[in-house]
This record gives sequence, structure tokens and C-alpha cells, in this order.
Amino acid sequence: MTKFADRMEHVSGSAIRELFKLLGDPEIISFGGGNPAKETFPVDMVMGICDDLLTQKGTVLLQYGATEGYGPYLDAYIDYVGKEKGIKADRSNVLAITGSMQGIDLICRAFINPGDAIMVESPTFLGALQTFNLAQAKLVPVSMDEEGVIIEELEEKIKLHRPKLYYCIPTFQNPTGRTLSLERRRRVAELAAKYDMVVIEDDPYCELRYRNEPLPCIKTFDDAGQVILLNSFSKTLSPGIRVGAALGAPEKIRKLTICKQSADTHTANITQAIAAEFMARGLMKPHIESILPGYNSKMNAMLDAIDEFFPKECQCTRPDGGLFIWGKMPDGVLTLPLFERAVKEYKVAFVPGEHFFCDPAIGRSTLRLNFSAEPIDRICKGIEMLGGLLKESL
Amino acid sequence: MTKFADRMEHVSGSAIRELFKLLGDPEIISFGGGNPAKETFPVDMVMGICDDLLTQKGTVLLQYGATEGYGPYLDAYIDYVGKEKGIKADRSNVLAITGSMQGIDLICRAFINPGDAIMVESPTFLGALQTFNLAQAKLVPVSMDEEGVIIEELEEKIKLHRPKLYYCIPTFQNPTGRTLSLERRRRVAELAAKYDMVVIEDDPYCELRYRNEPLPCIKTFDDAGQVILLNSFSKTLSPGIRVGAALGAPEKIRKLTICKQSADTHTANITQAIAAEFMARGLMKPHIESILPGYNSKMNAMLDAIDEFFPKECQCTRPDGGLFIWGKMPDGVLTLPLFERAVKEYKVAFVPGEHFFCDPAIGRSTLRLNFSAEPIDRICKGIEMLGGLLKESL
Repeated sequence: MTKFADRMEHVSGSAIRELFKLLGDPEIISFGGGNPAKETFPVDMVMGICDDLLTQKGTVLLQYGATEGYGPYLDAYIDYVGKEKGIKADRSNVLAITGSMQGIDLICRAFINPGDAIMVESPTFLGALQTFNLAQAKLVPVSMDEEGVIIEELEEKIKLHRPKLYYCIPTFQNPTGRTLSLERRRRVAELAAKYDMVVIEDDPYCELRYRNEPLPCIKTFDDAGQVILLNSFSKTLSPGIRVGAALGAPEKIRKLTICKQSADTHTANITQAIAAEFMARGLMKPHIESILPGYNSKMNAMLDAIDEFFPKECQCTRPDGGLFIWGKMPDGVLTLPLFERAVKEYKVAFVPGEHFFCDPAIGRSTLRLNFSAEPIDRICKGIEMLGGLLKESL
Repeated sequence: MTKFADRMEHVSGSAIRELFKLLGDPEIISFGGGNPAKETFPVDMVMGICDDLLTQKGTVLLQYGATEGYGPYLDAYIDYVGKEKGIKADRSNVLAITGSMQGIDLICRAFINPGDAIMVESPTFLGALQTFNLAQAKLVPVSMDEEGVIIEELEEKIKLHRPKLYYCIPTFQNPTGRTLSLERRRRVAELAAKYDMVVIEDDPYCELRYRNEPLPCIKTFDDAGQVILLNSFSKTLSPGIRVGAALGAPEKIRKLTICKQSADTHTANITQAIAAEFMARGLMKPHIESILPGYNSKMNAMLDAIDEFFPKECQCTRPDGGLFIWGKMPDGVLTLPLFERAVKEYKVAFVPGEHFFCDPAIGRSTLRLNFSAEPIDRICKGIEMLGGLLKESL
């Protein structure tokens, strides 16, 4: 059989996506996914928008579009980030992407030769790790504390490895739920400028804030044009429409656009137009505000249940927003076998944390809990059962 | 500034896409694009389908989907290729893709290391050439005659270069409009098996047949599981929805699926669902039948006008379908400067053919004409003016 490319050798598909194919059983209480709650989807609004769009410009939407993006979508996004995030941009700064996963991938293509170093928070989003592995990059993890990545270690490792890219999720990070502090955001932008390193600021969760004040994006400190901000509508509007945006310096966006021509020509017009209308009609902010209380209640229910039922030895994060809580059991307690027991014996699922580390051995006693997918009664019941299992494992 | 990856060095974006940004002037008669005629888009049907889909399964469509594709889409496609093309497949053979461009890209990622050889018809689709260049492949062109690629030359060059991939558009090829003969289709499948070479059978135009009988896909001769068929709904339903399918042996589809996880997680559910419904409701065949007469009239109008107005020295293909006619002027007549004069002085556009060749020098006196985008009166007028310019150039 024809030999596959070298890059395929150490890649086996997303462990989580494989894992969760097994979880078809509706009885299973799942804290394992990262899906937004289905009750948050504004189906009726999307339906109305689709009707209007197809009536008014059906032939434009069904025809080929520009690789850069559908004009009204780019303009609505530029307006939105200007008002909501204080970022000034024009069309030369923006590329419409097929979800922010595509943004990560296009940046790898534009910048990474095999062997180039990419720095990542440890732990981090495993989809990004998989993309970086496919790009045959050398991954350099940087430790975090409760305020996010540790800047001294970041700079030290930058000096040592001279990375082309630093990938981070500064707000309500996946998987930890942690948020990078204001001062550290400023420092990341400084380091990017000082060491000629591109920062991928992946920011899909920032609008899901349930308490405390929003922090500015790293991009707002980016005088050197080294930060590429990735935004997604997956967590606010719908992940199934696969629409996001990359925002950065024009020469970088231009190269990403060239890569995107080869990747998928352009993102579907109709899905871009749905997101555009949602923003342009002023629906986005009220919609987000309408879904926050439900998520907040779920997070609080999970945190309360953790306090009540988890062993004290399991250290859990207390995020200000997002979709995830992160737990750390004492070293030596292995969460992968616990996952299997949890699913089979207790019908509760979580994600064993090791998948989120460059070196899984470091994360063998960690776990990620998602609180968005289940109703509150099942959250409490599931955490109680999981707590029992965790106590048993000590 | 952070250095871009080596693969970006010889890539400058699609020449045509750049060229046609200049053609905003509606006065210009354009034979340059490859867009389906906008009057063929079934806007009302799509609107009805969208309404029904969002009403019946809105939350499913707005949620994350499987990388493999939206189940009802995969099933409808499998049923469709079974009935229409006589290809037996199940879900393990199929991957939903974001347009067939993504299929070409994913196959490169799964198979191509820098320096690996890819064989292509000469000339061929320039989007594919760009993707192969980004993959840092060694491109090996194979000559064509009126029956498509010349098999003896193909085998000779396979022996010499041992390519991993052979990329071809066997039916109404872009840019030539030529169709690979039945016997040669069989031979391509044999060579793929004999020399352990994967064939990308890119087949977006085959349903746009205006005369003579359909030919079976190369895939139907593929006992060795070496052919990956790429289908697209861009030319039959809508290019703006960006939906296609890759069909091949399960172990190959599995690797493409892993690459797709990193590329865009999954294709938008709603656009897959639109295509699925279009097939499942039995709308596809009658819709295609309804658009063929219009395209046929346009092609005939262009061919008649060419007979009347083009110099005899310009040899043009006479396709049985598709969207393109290919012209060859005598060596020494350069079509790139003629393109500039045509646009500026005559307000007529075509594509200078050199962009479709691995070595542009070979194609300097060729041109591609698209007949789908303009109404018949403008086709006749445009060809008359272009004919005048071509005669002048001799």
C-alpha cells in the first residue's frame, strides 16, 4: 500500500473524539465533552435570518465567494471586535475561517517547518496539540499557576528554544478554566515583540464570563503586530456553523489567506452570512447575556457538588467563566483507569487529563470536567458518584 | 519579522483569483471565471429545505458534528453514487469535505512528504497545482491528446519518478474540457495498482454532460483500492455551500479524517444537511436535467461564434460537457499580454493558459474560455471581439 506521509506516523486522531464515540448511551452523565448546551442555540433567530438572507441574496450566497471572507461578515466582525474588545481593524487584518481550529492549522502552515518550536501552555487544548504534531513541530510546554502561564518560565524557554509560535488560550482556558492575569497579558505581548515570536491568541470562551470584570485581549497590547487573535462563534452562537475569524497584521493575514485558498477555497457563504446578520442586527450581545445565567448556575452547581462530594485531595480550579473545571488528584492516582470504571460502573464520563499534555506522563492524575452539557440535577448526581469513585481511589 | 515556513516561498496565491479581483466592472464580458451560472441555483428549494431542517433538527445542526460527516449526508451521498455511478460504498469509505479543494489538500497531507512526486495532466486545475506546491511536492506533468492523458507517457514517467499520487480530472477536464476515454480509464486504474500509486479522481464536472453517453468513473475499475474519488456539489447545486465528498478505501479515508480533524474539525452541518436533503428528496437529478439545456446552448453559442470569428490558427477543443473550452494559438503568440489588451481595450476577459501548466513557458500561447457565466448575446459579442484581437495578434 502506498506509504503515508511521515507526519502521519505519530498521529492517531483525537483521543477524545474516539473516546466519546463510545458514549452513545443517553444514561451516561457526561462531563466529557466541550459542547455548548443545546438549549442555548438560537434556532428561531437563525431560521429567520436564513429566510431573509436567501430571499434577499440567495444567488450571491450560493455562488463562490472570496477566500478572504464574505464582505458583510468581515465588516460585522470588525465592527463587533471594535466595540466589544476595543480592537481597531480593517479588512486587511481579517480572514474568515471555518472555525478557529482552521486558524490554528493555517498559522502552522504559514509559519512552521518540521522541527520548528511551538510553545504551549501546559496543559492545553488537545486539538491544537494534534495540529502542531501534524505540522511536525517541536512542542515546548510552559507551566501555569492560578494566574495562567508563568512568565519567567516562558521567557527562559523562549531564549532556549527560539520558538516561532506561542499558542495560548488566555481566558477560561481549555482545559483548566484559568484566566491569564492583566499584567501577564502585557508581558506576553512584550515577549512576542522582543523575541520575534508570533502569538496565537485563541479566544473562544472569553464571552462566557460569569463573574468579575473582563480583561483586554493580549492583542490590545500588540504594538509589534505579532499577535494573531482567533475568534470563534462556536461557544456563543453555534459550533455547527463552523465560522470564526483570524485577526492580525496584514502581511500575516495575507499568507494565511494563501494557505486557505488551498485548504477550502473559502468558508461557506451562508454560515458566514448567518453570523454576520446575528452581529449586524445587534443580536449577539443580548443573546450572550441571555445564556450566561444558565451556564453560571451549572458551574456553581458543579463547584458546590465538588465541595460536597469530592475528596479534599482533589484540587479543582474555580473559573470565572468558560465551560471547564480542572481537577488534580494526588500523584499516583491514575485517572485513565478511573475513567473506564466511571463510564462502565457509574455511567459518568469525564476526560482523563493526560491527553492535554505534551508529555502525558505529567498529567496522569488530572481530569477535565465540562459543566455545560448536562442539566443541574444530573450534574449533582454525576459529581456525587464521581466523588465516591475518586475517594475510593485514594 | 518572524520568518514564514519554507513552503510559502514559491507560492503567491492563485493568479486567477488575483486577476479577477480587477474585473469588478460589469461591462466586462467575462469568460475568465469557472463559476456556475447564477440562474442555475435552486434558491427556493434551498430555502424550503433550510426551513424544514431548522424546524425539525435545529439544535442538532447548530451543535458540533462528527469529523466524518453528518450521518444523513453520508447516507444520501452513498445512495446517490450507488445509483448514479454504480459505486458501492458504506460509511467507512466516505468523508464529508468542505468542497473538493479540501479533498485535494487532505490527500496531500496524508501522503506527501516534501520532494515526493505527484503526476498531473498537463495542463491542469491551477488550484490543485497551488496545493501541490504548498505541499512541496515534485510535480511531473503528463501530456494529453483529445482522449485525455497519454497512457504510454504516464507509465513511462511513473517508472521514472515513482509518484505517490496521480491527480486527474477525467471528465470535462479543467482547463481543456477533454474527457478521458473508457479504455484509458481502465488503464489508469491498472497502473495505480501495478505501481502502488494513489489516484485522485477529481470529478466535479461529470454531471454537466450535454452530449454523448456518460463514462464510468476510474473508481469503478479500482479493484486495488488505490483511487480516491472526489465529488463536489459546487457545479450542480451550489459552490457557496462548500460541500463535497471523498470516497476511497477505508484505511485511506481514516487518515484523511485524522487530517480533517486538524483542518476544520468538521464541515458545517447545515450545508451538509442541505445537500443531503437535496439528494434524499430526489431533487438532484431533475435539477441537473433542468440546467443542462441552458449550459448546452451557451456552449454551442460559444463554439459557433468561435467557428465564425476566431482565426483558423486557434485550435479549440469541442467538449461534450463541463464549463470550459480550451484554445491554442500558434507558438509565439503570447496570451498573457493579449489578456491585458482584451480587458482594457475590448472589455473581454479570458484566462491566459500558462497558469495551468507546471512550467508556464509551455502554455504561453494557450487560453481558457468559460461559457457558463455570461448570457448568449454577450457570449457571441465577446467571442467576436476576442476573435478580432486574436487575428490581429497573428
